[in-house]
Amino acid sequence: MSAPDIHSARPSFASFAPPQRTLMGPGPSDLHPRTLAALSRPTVGHLDPSFVGMMDELKVLLRYAFQTENALTFPVSGPGSVGMETCFDNLVEPGDTVIVCRNGVFGGRMIENVERAGGIAIVVDDVWGETVDPQKVEDAFKTHPEAKLLAFVHAETSTGARADAQALAEIARRHGALSIVDAVTSLAGCELRVDAWGLDAVYSGSQKCLSSAPGLSPVTFSEAALERIKGRSRRVQSWFMDLNLVLDYWNSAKRTYHHTAPINNLYALHESLLLLAEEGIENAWARHARLHRMLRAGLEAMGLQFVVAEPWRLPQLNTVYVPEGVNDPEVRRRLLNNFNLEIGAGLGPLAGKVWRFGLMGQSCREENIILCLQALAETLNALGLPTDGDAAFASAHAANTA
Amino acid sequence: MSAPDIHSARPSFASFAPPQRTLMGPGPSDLHPRTLAALSRPTVGHLDPSFVGMMDELKVLLRYAFQTENALTFPVSGPGSVGMETCFDNLVEPGDTVIVCRNGVFGGRMIENVERAGGIAIVVDDVWGETVDPQKVEDAFKTHPEAKLLAFVHAETSTGARADAQALAEIARRHGALSIVDAVTSLAGCELRVDAWGLDAVYSGSQKCLSSAPGLSPVTFSEAALERIKGRSRRVQSWFMDLNLVLDYWNSAKRTYHHTAPINNLYALHESLLLLAEEGIENAWARHARLHRMLRAGLEAMGLQFVVAEPWRLPQLNTVYVPEGVNDPEVRRRLLNNFNLEIGAGLGPLAGKVWRFGLMGQSCREENIILCLQALAETLNALGLPTDGDAAFASAHAANTA
Repeated sequence: MSAPDIHSARPSFASFAPPQRTLMGPGPSDLHPRTLAALSRPTVGHLDPSFVGMMDELKVLLRYAFQTENALTFPVSGPGSVGMETCFDNLVEPGDTVIVCRNGVFGGRMIENVERAGGIAIVVDDVWGETVDPQKVEDAFKTHPEAKLLAFVHAETSTGARADAQALAEIARRHGALSIVDAVTSLAGCELRVDAWGLDAVYSGSQKCLSSAPGLSPVTFSEAALERIKGRSRRVQSWFMDLNLVLDYWNSAKRTYHHTAPINNLYALHESLLLLAEEGIENAWARHARLHRMLRAGLEAMGLQFVVAEPWRLPQLNTVYVPEGVNDPEVRRRLLNNFNLEIGAGLGPLAGKVWRFGLMGQSCREENIILCLQALAETLNALGLPTDGDAAFASAHAANTA
Repeated sequence: MSAPDIHSARPSFASFAPPQRTLMGPGPSDLHPRTLAALSRPTVGHLDPSFVGMMDELKVLLRYAFQTENALTFPVSGPGSVGMETCFDNLVEPGDTVIVCRNGVFGGRMIENVERAGGIAIVVDDVWGETVDPQKVEDAFKTHPEAKLLAFVHAETSTGARADAQALAEIARRHGALSIVDAVTSLAGCELRVDAWGLDAVYSGSQKCLSSAPGLSPVTFSEAALERIKGRSRRVQSWFMDLNLVLDYWNSAKRTYHHTAPINNLYALHESLLLLAEEGIENAWARHARLHRMLRAGLEAMGLQFVVAEPWRLPQLNTVYVPEGVNDPEVRRRLLNNFNLEIGAGLGPLAGKVWRFGLMGQSCREENIILCLQALAETLNALGLPTDGDAAFASAHAANTA
């Protein structure tokens, strides 16, 4: 059978040459040259003995990043949303009540996950840009003592607000519930201590403060979470995400074939975690905090206002209101086209109202802040909003050397 | 709160330096240097205009590879198993009857997918290593006229057997059912014409005959499949795989944020598809067929016997019985350690009984066949099984120049 003519036409495009951007949005962040180089090392088989040894190192490195001794700590072969769904699909059984905190996009996505897994979501709402109110969570458990899980976002990527993960997990534990924690944007960018804080199921992403290639989702599960998964009365609705199956590949000497791991992405994740270990996790947290103060001083000197109140601001994600009368897409377009600088737009109800400046992992560098302040001041001035770039620099510099 | 001491110990490992293998197993296959280079180009944001343009080219290139004009053709952000589950989760509703053909591991996995999506699987079994018997499928539809879907594997990676995809899809259509087709190993390695054959939902993998980095699953859906998905009475059980949501990112001018795409993997897929378009899809099929004949002549001259009968042998996956008295793992270990050559072991009931020689994409090269025959002859001789390597070469050479 011969193909219709239309299919015989071979498409003809050039190789894709991406521009060299500075990534200061909500992720992905800039990859370190060592991480980029790791990506293009020769592909080996997913059952190759050399690769299997690297997998073991990866687990150790991820435990360090998560500050945990959880045996079940590994990178899920998919974006952060697959890590999220892996947590919910394995821990929620049909009919289970789950208290979900929502103060941004990702809390909303958690509700979807609960409901699609057959659970009943009890939603604790807080205003976007505010932290999660522990008292409301306490009240929700009193009204719903049957709740088996508490789900919340540690670092809400859509707003830049941090939640008190330790306090929230403590409330869950007191009510006999396990916690599911979104640490996509928090891991390696601010304090996160899975064991000390008693978090049960935590997922993250490779492309935020780990500055690896997008496409992997590190996860970690406590013994209590693992027991609940093993004791499920119904099997997990997803074959791919069923941890009872994945375990035989990642967490057993059997190394039973489950799926073909994203080999090259795992090389890159390994390298980015080495960079983190070399710096030291607490030094990485401190670097994010210090450079956040620098960026903040500069932005505030330009008259920009932060959305999130100071105690709950994420150093790695700085959300400010778009000044009145300023054309949001035009500013971002100019930053991208004239300075190769990517910053983030608002999501959901914040669309058009805020900018999100990421300082994540390898993107969290003094040079980037200087570029960002300079580019923003020039752009705002060009658009007719008088902005004192020199004052911004002076303030940023002072904050950084304070 | 300070961390317990154990967590303060920074892990210290070297950067991972993978060995340079020749990949002649069931995938991943060797990446072309251009594809490896594409992987490590600078990461841009997933909403970057330059990236969005590349996504449009990717869809055109994938349509060419699949030989289809389906609008909904794109790479799922996960391994082939996620592509598989995306097809089943979107097309199966609870209570639906699905006829599933099983003649290897991946047909078995399809049954799992049907059942986890709440469907009822009617299994049509054939012997592993044989093709799918269309008469049995016809009979199954007669017994189950309520069946809404037929699922089968075009190229069964566990055995090396091909199914007559065109004939099977035609049976499904005659009975008012849609077809779900596993083309993980077939895409670009042997004839596959999605439109001409009337296939409805087809998934593949990036790391087989496309020779890109593992971690992506190209899929394509016919208009009839898309209509069924849009007309579902219940929403898809997976948030991540729900095509109604993914569509707004991949198939709409809106480019609504859904998840962070695996940017660098998409660079690599784009490049590997350019290589395919430059060669021409029919030339690629012909290359696989020609070099399969060469490898086969060499293996048969060594006395090795193929598992699959000739008309159903996949050129890209050559499965032969392990000769009696030969230590299977020892042979594979020596090929790997002495020659950096990976071949595949048997899976399931074929474990220990067969070897699988892949000739996929960039791995399908004359040099690889020469290495493979040489290495295998030396290894078998060293293990005490007299093997005439020279005769094998002469036969292979003759087959290649015939």
